[in-house]
Amino acid sequence: MTTEPDTTADLARLQELLQGDDVQPAIDLLDGMHPADQADVFEALDEDDQPKMLALLSGEGIAHLLGHLEDEQRRSVVEQMPRATLARVLDASDYDIAVDILRAIPPAEAVMTLSQMRTAAEVTPLLGHADESAGGLMTRGYIAVHRDMTAGEAIDFLRATKPAAEEAYYLYVLDAANHLQGVVNLRQLIVSDPETRLEDVMEPEPIAVAVETDQEEAANLMQHYRLRSLPVVDEEGVLSGVITSDDIIDVIQDEATEDMYYMAGLPGDDSLHAPLQVSARKRIPWLLVNLVTSFMAGGIVALFEGTIEKAAALAVFMPIIAAQSGNAGIQTVTIVVRGIALREMEADDAWRALRKEMALGVFRGVLFGVLVGGAAYLWQGEWAWGAVVGGAMLLNMVVAGLLGTLIPITLRALKLDPAIASGILLASITDILGFLMLLGFGALAISQLT
Amino acid sequence: MTTEPDTTADLARLQELLQGDDVQPAIDLLDGMHPADQADVFEALDEDDQPKMLALLSGEGIAHLLGHLEDEQRRSVVEQMPRATLARVLDASDYDIAVDILRAIPPAEAVMTLSQMRTAAEVTPLLGHADESAGGLMTRGYIAVHRDMTAGEAIDFLRATKPAAEEAYYLYVLDAANHLQGVVNLRQLIVSDPETRLEDVMEPEPIAVAVETDQEEAANLMQHYRLRSLPVVDEEGVLSGVITSDDIIDVIQDEATEDMYYMAGLPGDDSLHAPLQVSARKRIPWLLVNLVTSFMAGGIVALFEGTIEKAAALAVFMPIIAAQSGNAGIQTVTIVVRGIALREMEADDAWRALRKEMALGVFRGVLFGVLVGGAAYLWQGEWAWGAVVGGAMLLNMVVAGLLGTLIPITLRALKLDPAIASGILLASITDILGFLMLLGFGALAISQLT
Repeated sequence: MTTEPDTTADLARLQELLQGDDVQPAIDLLDGMHPADQADVFEALDEDDQPKMLALLSGEGIAHLLGHLEDEQRRSVVEQMPRATLARVLDASDYDIAVDILRAIPPAEAVMTLSQMRTAAEVTPLLGHADESAGGLMTRGYIAVHRDMTAGEAIDFLRATKPAAEEAYYLYVLDAANHLQGVVNLRQLIVSDPETRLEDVMEPEPIAVAVETDQEEAANLMQHYRLRSLPVVDEEGVLSGVITSDDIIDVIQDEATEDMYYMAGLPGDDSLHAPLQVSARKRIPWLLVNLVTSFMAGGIVALFEGTIEKAAALAVFMPIIAAQSGNAGIQTVTIVVRGIALREMEADDAWRALRKEMALGVFRGVLFGVLVGGAAYLWQGEWAWGAVVGGAMLLNMVVAGLLGTLIPITLRALKLDPAIASGILLASITDILGFLMLLGFGALAISQLT
Repeated sequence: MTTEPDTTADLARLQELLQGDDVQPAIDLLDGMHPADQADVFEALDEDDQPKMLALLSGEGIAHLLGHLEDEQRRSVVEQMPRATLARVLDASDYDIAVDILRAIPPAEAVMTLSQMRTAAEVTPLLGHADESAGGLMTRGYIAVHRDMTAGEAIDFLRATKPAAEEAYYLYVLDAANHLQGVVNLRQLIVSDPETRLEDVMEPEPIAVAVETDQEEAANLMQHYRLRSLPVVDEEGVLSGVITSDDIIDVIQDEATEDMYYMAGLPGDDSLHAPLQVSARKRIPWLLVNLVTSFMAGGIVALFEGTIEKAAALAVFMPIIAAQSGNAGIQTVTIVVRGIALREMEADDAWRALRKEMALGVFRGVLFGVLVGGAAYLWQGEWAWGAVVGGAMLLNMVVAGLLGTLIPITLRALKLDPAIASGILLASITDILGFLMLLGFGALAISQLT
């Protein structure tokens, strides 16, 4: 029984064996490991040891390993591989992995590699599809049968051909022109009378997507209908491939990561293990944008320098108002961005969400307006302090609720990702407006404050 | 071919039909819809129309509908159902759905309902497991066969019993005491010689988890090994149930949502459509915590009121330093929290990540220290302004990199979720330390600044 995958012991043992001369124990160790664990061990090895480990694996072994490596590691392994070896490895790979790898190498190199591959005919058509589309995600490793076959004939066909398809539970039923007619699963096939024709047991008109469908939409559909695999068809309804549930899990994780990153002003492809220079290059741009907005907030404060000189205690409430409304707004932005991502928000829900978040903004505004304004009154002993600080707090909370809803909805209406920098944008605007209201009210009431 | 599920037309048609007297067209409409779409329509109906729609569905139809409803909606449907009806509906539900529903109603009610269920024997053992454990996630809808059977006998067994199991692609091979011995899939079964014994074709020692395993760990394992289903065994190795890939997708989405929410200071169970009072109750507590930390930041500023009176321009740089280091820190926190969630961070990676984020902090610190300090110098025409502002900016950026890594790592070491309020905590501390450094340096150099 396995719980958390733990490859620490295997890693240590392999490192030791790679130092020795006898390769057989290392080969035996790797043979006993799942490719997913081999990938973990490989990624933890020194750069010197990685080629040694590859040398111990068969072409098929490397193919399985590549299927589980992170993109960056995969690229560096492929770069160092002679073309003939790569062709042999890709022949042994799942088609969708082979396509991903061919896409990542220079086009001329990809063509030369393809020309040496046995599976070129299956892989080439897949190369034409956009990486993040259903066509880019699908595999051609499925089993197709003709609608006129009987259940018994289909079973005989499977016995005779022993297909090693990636998606082997569903049989896809086609007509003579390869149009998708229906789906039948192996269980139905087995329990049916062998004389029954497939078209009588198949589920007709199965849910399917077009090759150009965005991968997120395909993932959403599979999740919505709880599908284990999703056929992909071209514009004429000809079956082009099949998306399997393990690919969808990757898409879902990637989309969630992307949303979290976008909200924090990070591009989708930074990561914990990215090299320092790469991370620096990816993280600086948004901070520069943020520098502009924070200079704008500073500029508002500069406008009121005279007011602050007279009533320096106003500066004390600046961070309180900024932090409270920033955080309240981030709560709202997060709820709305995630709601959109999980498809909980239809068009007519936008108005309902806006009303709710506005109401919540007023509620939070009154609560924190009273608390923060009350603190200002108690500290300074003047009603005017309570009114200036509490009023700015209240209004900025309402602004936070409004913007927290409007920013992601607007980004979506502009066909942008609703998560893109929405957190940073919101905090900038609540800073700017918060200071404007606090210091503006303070300037108006300055005679009462001092 | 379907793309995005769109139920707007179905909803409008159903609303219209529910007003009329003739129920048959409404029944036909519902019959033609996928239960996932029925659930979308149901959730969009008025409270008056919802019972009318339920009345049109069979027990089995309601069971399918319940399987696709959000928790809250499901609860309200179940509450209004007579006990005998509920028992009939649960009999038609997948076991894991039935268990979820029985868990959500009062225990006495659950026992009475169980006593009227035909499937009580299958469902009862599942009730003992924690909701978020493998035992709480698994279904008992799998097919078990004895290891001494031959492939042909297994096929005959399937033909004779026609099991409608939820997980029907894999057969689980058991010994006489129900210990899990191996797994064989239907494809292997079909292509094998009918005389072969199952123990010769099965995959022995399949990856499995214990019933008490956390659901996130089970999801991680299925993702790591790209499994379509995962057997769950008790402490003696007896097969207790099976987790299927559609359940795992829900777990993955829920965990991602929870992390995003936690980072924004939201409890995991708020949502876009939660009632206003519920959302208010859930969102206020963290804002109150944040009020304390923002008063601390304000308190730091209050300590330096005299300094600000003399050099009010310092207040201009407060929001700039707070926003820049807050955002830089949020980038780091997000990368680390997500890296931990995706299991990219092993124990010895923590130190590597810390070094990288510190180096990045120094780099960002120097860059923005020069930019912001330079702006201060140009504006005020005094080197001291550049040194005070630039120095505070530089140091606070380093602090942001350090805390952005340490806060989630520390939360994890304390066995808390690394995401919990890590964003809010970070922004509070960078605010406090940023003001302390800016105003502290300003107080020390006050004679140079004015």
